[in-house]
Parts: sequence; C-alpha cells; structure tokens
Amino acid sequence: MTITGVNYIGSEESRNGKDTFQAPDPANNTTLPEPFYIATEKEVDRAMESANNAFPAYRDLSGKRKAEFLEAIAQEILSLGPTLLNRASAETGYPTGRIEGERGRTVHQLRLFAELLCEGSWVDARIDTADPGREPAPKPDIRNMLVPIGPVVVFGASNFPLAFSTAGGDTASALAAGCPVVVKAHESHPGTNELVARAILKAAEKTKMPNGIFSSLNGMGETGQALVRHPMTRAIGFTGSTHVGTAIYRSAAAREHPIPVYAEMGSVNPIFLLPEKLKSDSSSLAAECAASVTLTFGQFCTNPGLIFAIEGDSLPPFLDHLAGKLHQSETMCMLNPGIAGNYRENRDRVFSQKGVDVLVEPGQEEGTYSSAALAVTTSKQFLENPVLHEEVFGPFTLVVKCSGEAELAAAAEKLNGQLAISLMGTESELSRFDELIKVLREKAGRVIFNDVPTGVEVCHSMMHGGPFPSTSDSKFTSVGTSAIRRFVRPVAFQNCPDALLPDELKEKNPLGIWRLVDGEQSREAGSDL
Amino acid sequence: MTITGVNYIGSEESRNGKDTFQAPDPANNTTLPEPFYIATEKEVDRAMESANNAFPAYRDLSGKRKAEFLEAIAQEILSLGPTLLNRASAETGYPTGRIEGERGRTVHQLRLFAELLCEGSWVDARIDTADPGREPAPKPDIRNMLVPIGPVVVFGASNFPLAFSTAGGDTASALAAGCPVVVKAHESHPGTNELVARAILKAAEKTKMPNGIFSSLNGMGETGQALVRHPMTRAIGFTGSTHVGTAIYRSAAAREHPIPVYAEMGSVNPIFLLPEKLKSDSSSLAAECAASVTLTFGQFCTNPGLIFAIEGDSLPPFLDHLAGKLHQSETMCMLNPGIAGNYRENRDRVFSQKGVDVLVEPGQEEGTYSSAALAVTTSKQFLENPVLHEEVFGPFTLVVKCSGEAELAAAAEKLNGQLAISLMGTESELSRFDELIKVLREKAGRVIFNDVPTGVEVCHSMMHGGPFPSTSDSKFTSVGTSAIRRFVRPVAFQNCPDALLPDELKEKNPLGIWRLVDGEQSREAGSDL
Repeated sequence: MTITGVNYIGSEESRNGKDTFQAPDPANNTTLPEPFYIATEKEVDRAMESANNAFPAYRDLSGKRKAEFLEAIAQEILSLGPTLLNRASAETGYPTGRIEGERGRTVHQLRLFAELLCEGSWVDARIDTADPGREPAPKPDIRNMLVPIGPVVVFGASNFPLAFSTAGGDTASALAAGCPVVVKAHESHPGTNELVARAILKAAEKTKMPNGIFSSLNGMGETGQALVRHPMTRAIGFTGSTHVGTAIYRSAAAREHPIPVYAEMGSVNPIFLLPEKLKSDSSSLAAECAASVTLTFGQFCTNPGLIFAIEGDSLPPFLDHLAGKLHQSETMCMLNPGIAGNYRENRDRVFSQKGVDVLVEPGQEEGTYSSAALAVTTSKQFLENPVLHEEVFGPFTLVVKCSGEAELAAAAEKLNGQLAISLMGTESELSRFDELIKVLREKAGRVIFNDVPTGVEVCHSMMHGGPFPSTSDSKFTSVGTSAIRRFVRPVAFQNCPDALLPDELKEKNPLGIWRLVDGEQSREAGSDL
Repeated sequence: MTITGVNYIGSEESRNGKDTFQAPDPANNTTLPEPFYIATEKEVDRAMESANNAFPAYRDLSGKRKAEFLEAIAQEILSLGPTLLNRASAETGYPTGRIEGERGRTVHQLRLFAELLCEGSWVDARIDTADPGREPAPKPDIRNMLVPIGPVVVFGASNFPLAFSTAGGDTASALAAGCPVVVKAHESHPGTNELVARAILKAAEKTKMPNGIFSSLNGMGETGQALVRHPMTRAIGFTGSTHVGTAIYRSAAAREHPIPVYAEMGSVNPIFLLPEKLKSDSSSLAAECAASVTLTFGQFCTNPGLIFAIEGDSLPPFLDHLAGKLHQSETMCMLNPGIAGNYRENRDRVFSQKGVDVLVEPGQEEGTYSSAALAVTTSKQFLENPVLHEEVFGPFTLVVKCSGEAELAAAAEKLNGQLAISLMGTESELSRFDELIKVLREKAGRVIFNDVPTGVEVCHSMMHGGPFPSTSDSKFTSVGTSAIRRFVRPVAFQNCPDALLPDELKEKNPLGIWRLVDGEQSREAGSDL
C-alpha cells in the first residue's frame, strides 16, 4: 500500500501546499523517504467546513448506526494487517509485537464504544414529569439528555501511534458522541496516520456515513494553531507535553468563542513503597519497578518517574536490585531525535541538581539511541527543588529517600497533579497509612494498590486524567467509556410533544435505556411507571 | 438584627481594611446607611486558607452529615423571617413577595441537594471487577467515583439576592459536592449577604461542621481578582455579565495552575412564534410575552430579548397587543444605578441602529427608575448587524419580522448560544418545523415548547446553561441537581483493599446506591451479583 503523503478532506485527497516533511526512522537514525504535504490554511478551513457540514446528518443517526461505523473502523484497521504493523514499527522504532498489542487496544476501544452506543443509557436521560395542578405554578414536563457538541480536533500522541492517535481514544469517543473529527496527524508517524485515516474513510464509505465526518491533516505547530483558532472547532483532544498542552488550552480560552481543551499532559506517576512491603519483597518490587520504568523504553504517559521510600535496612538492597536491572537494560532508540534529546537534557538536569546521586549512569548515546538511568535524592531536596518534581519523559526514575513517615507524608503533600500514583504496602500497613491514601487521592486521577502505574485498562471505571498539570481538566478521562463525556452537553426539552422528542426521551422509552425519572432510576416505559 | 458590614472568615468577624462601600437603595435612588468593609488581600488569603484547611474534614463526612448541614442552612434562612425579606427588598427594590418566592426557591434547592446526598447515587460509582485469569494480562479491579475538587469561590448575582447568591445554587451545589465555599458578596446586596452568611455559619456551628467551610467577603473587582488568582481556589461559580464572566474565565485559564470557571452570563432567550399559533392566539401570546419581558422588571437571566415571527396578517395585531401591554407597564426602579444606566444605554443603542423602529418609547427615566420598551426590525437587518444579537438586560424586547420560513430559519442559524429558546406553535406546525427545532437545539441549553423562557424549574432534568456566550462551559448547568457535577472529579481505585475503599465503592454496597458494575446498572451488594 503506497504512502502518498496527502491530506484527506473527507474522502478527498488534497495536496495544495508545497511544503513537505518526512517521517523519522528512529531505528536507523534517519528519516523515511516519503514526503508528507503540510496542510495549508485553506485546507484547514475546508476540513473544518466539511466537518461542520457533516455534523447534523451524523448527529441524527441512531446509536446503532454510529456503532456500525465504529465496528467497521475496527475491521478496516485489522484488515491492514502487516502493512500497518510494519509502517508503525518503522516510524516509532517499536517492535511489531508492541504495535500489535496497541492495535488490539485500539480495536477493543472502538468496539467498547460501539457496545456503549447500542446499549444507549450513556446519554444520561433525565425526566421530570409535569404536575399541572402544582401551586403556585404548574410544574412543566422537562426531559434532558446529552447531545454532541460539534466538530472535534484531535492531536495524536507521539508515543501511541494507534491507541492515542488517528483512530485512538479521542477519535473513538468523539465519533461515539456524534461529533465529526479532524485529526492533526502527529509528525512522528504520518504514514501510520495515513493508513489508519484511509481505514476510517473506507469504513465511513461502507457504512454510508456523511462525507466530512473524518478528515486528516499533516503539519506542524502552525497547522495545529490554525485548527485551534478555527471558528468551527468546538473542542480539542490532545495528548502530549505540558508545555504544548497548556499553550493550546490558553489559546482556546483566548478565542472570541472559547472552547474546551482536553489535554492529557505531563505526569510523573510516583510509586510509594511502604516499609513492611519493601522488607518482605525488595527484589521483586525492584524488578517490577524496573520493568515499568523501561516499558516501551519509558515512553509511557504513566511511566513512574519518582519512587518514594523510607530509609532503612531494606532500601539499599532494593536500590541495588533496581540499579542492576536498569543497568542491564540495553541502549534503545527513542521515538524521534527531539524526544531523545529532551529525555537526555531533562535527565541530565536532574543529575546536576544539588543532593542528587546518580546510581545508574547512562551508557553511550547517539541520535535517537538513549540509555536507561537511575538517580537518588532525599525528601529534603525534593521538598525544596521544583526541578525534581518535573516529568522526565523516558527510561529514568528518581528514588526519593525519606527519613521517616512524616517526610513521606510531606513529600506526598507537595506533589503536583498526577494521572496515577501507586502505593505498595502489606494489607496491615495500608490501613495504618490511611491518611496518606487520602492525600494521594487528592493528587491523582487513579490510585493503584500494589501494582505499577503503567497498565491503563480500557473499561467503564477507568480514570486516565487527573489534577493539573497531568491534564487540563481533572473532571474527564481520556481512556474508557466515560471519555465520551468530553464531547457532549446536556439539552433540556420543556413541554415538548412526545413525537418530536429524541427516542431516548420518549414516554414509551422505545430504546429501553436507563433513565432518571422523577429522581428514580428506571428502564421502564413511561406508561408503566 | 444589626448589619455590621464585616467579612466572615469562617466564624470569625474580620474588618482589617479601611475602605468601605454602601448598599444601594434603588427605590429611593440613594444608598443605605451601613458601611461594608472591603476585604484586604490578607483577608482574602486567610479565607482561602481557612477553606483549604476545612476541606479534608468536610470532604470525609458522610452524605447524610452534609445533608444535615444543608437542611440546617435552609432552616436558618427561614428563621430570619421578615428581617431577611425586608433587607433584600430594600437592597434590590423588589417587592417582598418576590423575595419570598425566591427564598422558597433557595430553601427548596438546599433541600433537594440534601435529598440527593441522602440517596447517594449521584457519585456515579463504577466498578469493573477483576479477572485474574485474563490473557495476556490479568484484569485488575477498578472502582471509580466522583470526589470534591476543593475550595470553590462563588460570585453572587445582582438579580437574585438569594437563589443565585450567598446560599444560592452555586453555594448549595459546591457544599453538596463536599467543597468549602468562599462567597464574594455582590456589592448590590451586601446586607442580604451578611444575613444569609450568618445563617450558614449558624447552621455550620449547629451541625458541627469544620470551621472554614464557609467564608463571606465584601468587595469590588479587586477582591474578586484576588480570589480568582489565589492558588488555593479550585473552581469558580459566577453569575453575571458576559464581559465580566469571560474576563474571569480567561484569568483563570492564565493562572499557573488553571482552574475551571462556571460562568452563567449573557443570554437573549429568543421566542419563535410560528404562524398558525400566532393566528389562533395572538392576544394571549402577546400578554404572555409582555409578562415574561417585564417579570422582575426584565432583570431575569432568561428574559426574552428577541421575538421572531413571520410577517403576515396576524403579526400587526400581536405587535399592537404587545405594545399596549408594555406601554401600560409602569416606570420601575432597577437593581442599582449601574444596571439602570447599562439598560438604557444598550437599549438606546439598539434604537439607533439602521432599520430599527421603536414601537414603545420609554417614559421619563431617572436614576434607577426606567421604562419598558419595544422595538421592531427585519430579519435582514438582524442577519447583518451583530448589535441586534446582544443582550439588553432589562424590560425590553426586539421583534424580528421574517419575510418567510427561510428567513426564520436563517435567523435561527445565526443566533448566539442561549440559555433557553422558546418555540410557540400548534402541534401540527411544530412537526412541520422539525428542522428548525434541530437548529434551536444546537443554540440553547433548553428548548421550550409553548411557554416563555422565564420559568427555571429546580429539578433533576433542568439545564440552566448553554453554548457560549450564555455560559463559559456548555457541559454544565447551574440550576438543578446536575449542578453538583461542576465541583467534582472522578477518582479510580485500582486493586484497593475493600476496607480502605469509600463506602460508595465497597463490595457489599453498604449505602445501597446505584452503581455501574461491569457495565450493568445495579444497586445490589457485590456478593449477590
């Protein structure tokens, strides 16, 4: 399958501009041959208009029809077979096995949203029935449900070419919500984007979706800015750095008509090791931590960048084991030269801070090829120095030694917002540390007990989001079915004739969904209530 | 009961500053005698710290305990009796009957949230149970619920001294969510604020709430800015003008740690009159519209500022009736000289636009005393001139004559975001206008059939919010039980020992609440599933 480098404005191939760029080839420290055409301002405009035109027709399709579309996307992605796996592997340097796992996650995600749409209760239907005899004024009939907000712009992530990119969680949840999507392809894997974009467009054609429901544009920062500024953009999904995410958030707030930005950004995902657990298990804990630090060579948004433990006899053997494991890990290529350069710069900045000891020195590094590393400091230093709180995206972790429980608690209190925090403890000591658990709960979207933070399950209860700076809006998750809530808003219908109501709100409850009727959960038809 | 003019930092009376201001006495075009002490930056700081300190203890109270507090606030407000009614009437110029109605709404709101907390299912508990045997990796146990976000700052509204102010919807929903509240009293009714603040503090003492759970500060814009900037502020509830609301939204986004702002701002709440309905009912429609335009002398956030109708034989008699009714309405005092001045300036600006004919000229106006007015224009003018789309806060409406159905639809497409839009039509013509209904649904949070927009019911299904500029975040309502969602965020607990989970998520479901368990709604205990 040839990579053409074009933009897709709906089903139309477009290459109006002259400027091009090439995808990285991180394993070979070079670039892949094909040119990708940077979308012009005019192409941005046409993509947004096309999304806006497709919106009413797509919005009004039933949940079942939208589910067919999502299922067809999953199928078309699978049909790409090794072509997709190989291209994604070439653009990221990830082994194809890793890409295959991510493809499974992407397909599962699309299917889970399809199921959610078929079941239908996600619209949070609420009905308060009329009481014409109420004094002093009659009570009206009010019915409320979630409706889509309009065209959504998605910025793919560098580190997940499938699951957080073109047909990833943001796109799947926006399409499930009923919103057209315009993807700004990540410049690190534009060929993977092209293949997936074509799969989505093929699925749209097969399931007879309105043209414009999906567009894909190539480009760098300027293309992104034009999409954020565009008056037809109604919301933004973003996964990337705190710096870029916050800048997008602020530009969106400065628009004449501000729009919401759901940016999943920087997170250090600390692990807290409690003393009894450390004592009983130090070598397996070290192995588990090392595996989490080096998973996908540290290029995980839930990578643990800080490990807190109380000083004592069990800490040195833990550090020895952890250092041994990280020392053994091979020099690997990172996603692109920019990410590799940032990793080394940020890590070396930590190394140069006062009171930081390097336990695993990096090996020889060149181009995208980088080494895992380990350093240690004290909670005193940590409390004083904000540099030690910042994310180092890559295979590095900083162990923070605390003199006692009070220092451990003080460090927890000082943490920035996180996607996830892990707490390792025996059952009895966890009960003793219940106040610490309450503090961790304030700092993170997900608190994990006796496991590392790197596994993010795609399900109804997942929270992949958290207080700033881990995301721009702690009320929302970008993984799991609740992610759909980012792209909808409630609308109430007051005294609307039954025939004109959406099916979700009709008296007979033709879809058989759960609804809050006069304050009670019910899936009955109104006349049976 | 003496008005002291102090700030309340928790239960402590504080007047560190020297600057004072006085409340308006709109009925007499003067001010009331008592000085109110403007909070200093230090007092702002102490109020926020005190809220932050109270947060953990308050957060951890059961829903039933928080409900006791809300119920006690309702009681204490009622206990103020005529003192409260008279003070609020003096500060607003509203008749005491109007204040009494608003007090009923305020008390009902507090009690509805108390009920919600006692029932408990509002936390949106979601449980995905473990599957240790899953391949390739075991599935963890994940449990998710909504938790409070921390101290909330509430800016009261000028036009609702009780229901959207000190103990109004924002405060009630934030306290219900588990968040401490710091109120910036509206400078238009600081005495009413003081009485209600004392009632809240008395209720807090009686129900043994942690000190700092509620504070009340007097001041103008600078006090507000200090509260928006304060690092311990976690969210803002605001009701007021688009100009001020948008400025607060943007400052909050520019903070080092951005915070959400729920601003309920400007809305014109148009009424669409369909031809058959107009024909059958023109005089009663005119009476209904006139009553809605002059309700509380136009000082309603859902006041209808635009009326769209198709030209034809029934329109002139409708206009005559409407003009007659508005002409009869007396010159009345508005809330304060600033609001009266803005009303006249904005209205007169509409009068001066090309193609606008004045049908009811205002009478003699002075100070706070203003007159109702009516103007008419064509949809051609409306489509071309953005001035005609803007809110005129006060007893004024602009009728827009459309040459036919196409122009009516075009005008609807051009509307700004609204809190509410009304559609008046016979059942048969409503079906015929289903495409118009779809357009209106995109423009508003609430679509009302055959009723005026001014009745906002406090219930589970109410949506009092809408696309920008009617609010800063169209996903949320500021009225009804869903308003609680503004002040919470989800937290997931992964593999957490049952004993350490909040009751809402424990396997046995001790609170008997509705939960989404493995994708199914259930209120059973886990062991019975």
